Amino acid sequence: VLAWPVTGKCIITLTTDFGLRDAYVACMKGVILGIKPDATLVDVSHQVAPQGIDEASYLLESIWPYFPSDTIHLAVVDPGVGTTRKAIAVTAPHGRFVGPDNGLFAAVLRRQGAIDPKSGRLVAATAVELANPRYRLPNPSSTFHGRDIFAPAAAHLAAGVPLSELGPSLSDLLLSPASEPHIADGVIHGRVRHIDRFGNAITDISGDALSGAPRIQAGNAVIEGLSRDFQEREISALVGSTGYLELAVRNGNAAETLHLGPGDEVIVRSVQ
Amino acid sequence: VLAWPVTGKCIITLTTDFGLRDAYVACMKGVILGIKPDATLVDVSHQVAPQGIDEASYLLESIWPYFPSDTIHLAVVDPGVGTTRKAIAVTAPHGRFVGPDNGLFAAVLRRQGAIDPKSGRLVAATAVELANPRYRLPNPSSTFHGRDIFAPAAAHLAAGVPLSELGPSLSDLLLSPASEPHIADGVIHGRVRHIDRFGNAITDISGDALSGAPRIQAGNAVIEGLSRDFQEREISALVGSTGYLELAVRNGNAAETLHLGPGDEVIVRSVQ
Amino acid sequence: VLAWPVTGKCIITLTTDFGLRDAYVACMKGVILGIKPDATLVDVSHQVAPQGIDEASYLLESIWPYFPSDTIHLAVVDPGVGTTRKAIAVTAPHGRFVGPDNGLFAAVLRRQGAIDPKSGRLVAATAVELANPRYRLPNPSSTFHGRDIFAPAAAHLAAGVPLSELGPSLSDLLLSPASEPHIADGVIHGRVRHIDRFGNAITDISGDALSGAPRIQAGNAVIEGLSRDFQEREISALVGSTGYLELAVRNGNAAETLHLGPGDEVIVRSVQ
Repeated sequence: VLAWPVTGKCIITLTTDFGLRDAYVACMKGVILGIKPDATLVDVSHQVAPQGIDEASYLLESIWPYFPSDTIHLAVVDPGVGTTRKAIAVTAPHGRFVGPDNGLFAAVLRRQGAIDPKSGRLVAATAVELANPRYRLPNPSSTFHGRDIFAPAAAHLAAGVPLSELGPSLSDLLLSPASEPHIADGVIHGRVRHIDRFGNAITDISGDALSGAPRIQAGNAVIEGLSRDFQEREISALVGSTGYLELAVRNGNAAETLHLGPGDEVIVRSVQ
Repeated sequence: VLAWPVTGKCIITLTTDFGLRDAYVACMKGVILGIKPDATLVDVSHQVAPQGIDEASYLLESIWPYFPSDTIHLAVVDPGVGTTRKAIAVTAPHGRFVGPDNGLFAAVLRRQGAIDPKSGRLVAATAVELANPRYRLPNPSSTFHGRDIFAPAAAHLAAGVPLSELGPSLSDLLLSPASEPHIADGVIHGRVRHIDRFGNAITDISGDALSGAPRIQAGNAVIEGLSRDFQEREISALVGSTGYLELAVRNGNAAETLHLGPGDEVIVRSVQ
Repeated sequence: VLAWPVTGKCIITLTTDFGLRDAYVACMKGVILGIKPDATLVDVSHQVAPQGIDEASYLLESIWPYFPSDTIHLAVVDPGVGTTRKAIAVTAPHGRFVGPDNGLFAAVLRRQGAIDPKSGRLVAATAVELANPRYRLPNPSSTFHGRDIFAPAAAHLAAGVPLSELGPSLSDLLLSPASEPHIADGVIHGRVRHIDRFGNAITDISGDALSGAPRIQAGNAVIEGLSRDFQEREISALVGSTGYLELAVRNGNAAETLHLGPGDEVIVRSVQ
């Protein structure tokens, strides 16, 4: 985590599965700028696969260390919109999060140590349900809470409304199961978590768990030892820019070459 | 329409068919920021299908209520660039509009009551032709008026230049035919107007026109009654977030499942 | 080049091959805004083909005249990340450029007269290697210099750090060969440089090199004379908005119709 100062000039990031062809994202931005005209808006991604909660939670986990601590991360991947799933806002050690209570923020809160691993309860974060009608648009729709509930909440937070004003506090959030590798007899069984634009396959195996010269089995390849960069070898295993083991092919596409997709197993053995 | 205050900090939205791979949109933004450095730029969509005037006019109709009244909506879907079609700017009750005179703004002006339904003339809006060379780039090209004519006009408006300075006033605009359902014997014959990223099929039938428990015939499906949200039923008909009837499939793609595309007929019968 | 004033409010443009689905661009923006919270960020394109240095250099060449002179153009298309290729910043007559030393900026520097055609050395520009660790993130990764080296350098420049503070000066840059047409006996042999979203094929033949009523041979077509706009003829050759000869098909796709792609030859003969 970078020691960013609190900036005063509030940043709101946006992560959705709304795509870039429709005007859904622009509606949210109009609502935010109507409430907080000098907010700085940063798009994280709107190309998350429809209903891709895991993908969005990975993106949020990879960006938060690079934004100031008072940044508001607004995320809307919301298959349950209009049902009983809660709308929430969370103040964490590093950043504030606004969106549906469907597991979107579980990975980032775990990474920040804000969830007790035993009880599964929030320990270093405060959450509320967005229930106060004063901070929603009038007559919110049942199908577009991004515009009618989440965008106004994020903008009001950015404008200085205290979290507690937005609704009653929550001590439990819906936490999706963590994507965590299984370790037994020194062998790590992990999974591909994300394929990026270059075809790099990013796993859930932290670089910290690797030692010596590991032998990595991924898709149809066995890779001996770690590379430092993408050019060193034809097929590389390396600790990528978010701290996780990833597989890459020099000037090529590892997912295609190695036949790897999200969820596929990656096995790491330490070699003596 | 939200009661947004006039903000002082001027927003310019951009809607084009320029795509995101080329640098056309960035050129427009450079021109705007050179003239009005503190403008707030919001992308609506640049993924409008090439020459997709209807699609862009739908997007504009869906966003304007969510932006402050002094927002400038710059839209460039311009198959006639370089020909005799006029370049225009319009001040409407809610928002200002800059772009080619090819019907792009007809839907939004109708929705705001700015066009007399009988005469087809502007009644609550003021339009000018962008003819004053002082507010264009020098030597405008014949192929990129977005950069050379529309972006400078929007920026100068944002910087406080009065509309009347930009050119002579116009009383008639080119108005594309409205996409309006036909109603006879209590049966509504409408059309699909837009397929969004989720495959939801949005029609031109206003939620206000629906009553009781309608029976909706769309593509290969007949749907009885309206849903409140996307999760209630497998195949839903509901009044969507822009106020129009839309067809959706739970965690699926209605356009594919029901075989629906833009222009396809949707029939609504009231059931007693 | 427009006579833009130096604005005071610093613009940073971003051109990458990172795509819009991943969060790489957002990480860079978070880093920039942490260092220079009031920077104005403008996306040029993130859809450059992976490792598409030529494509990115074309985009940079087409935008710089439309941005104020103090704009910082941050470009990251970086197949050699982590290897010995240098990280650089360049102050040119019109704009500042930050990115890898792999030829990305050669076209724009040539166009600005900043490279001596004989010696290939910088004559009207100052370049440095980004070697000062003070202006990088701590512990930069070997795989994401966009976030760890280039974004901080651009932000610190925007915040007023002098170029010379960033590292030692460089007199030679890696210059990719210019894409320049060959002229012999009055016949110009050029190449397609870019296919845009509309299918227009933009060549490397400057409009200044054309005279009279040229006969243009491109793909499977021979076109007699130049058009002024896209609507004048079914198949048009015209001097496009960036000053180069381009081929277009009215309301259609020239690349598909004429079977043209990047690198394909285009021949121009003057007709008496």
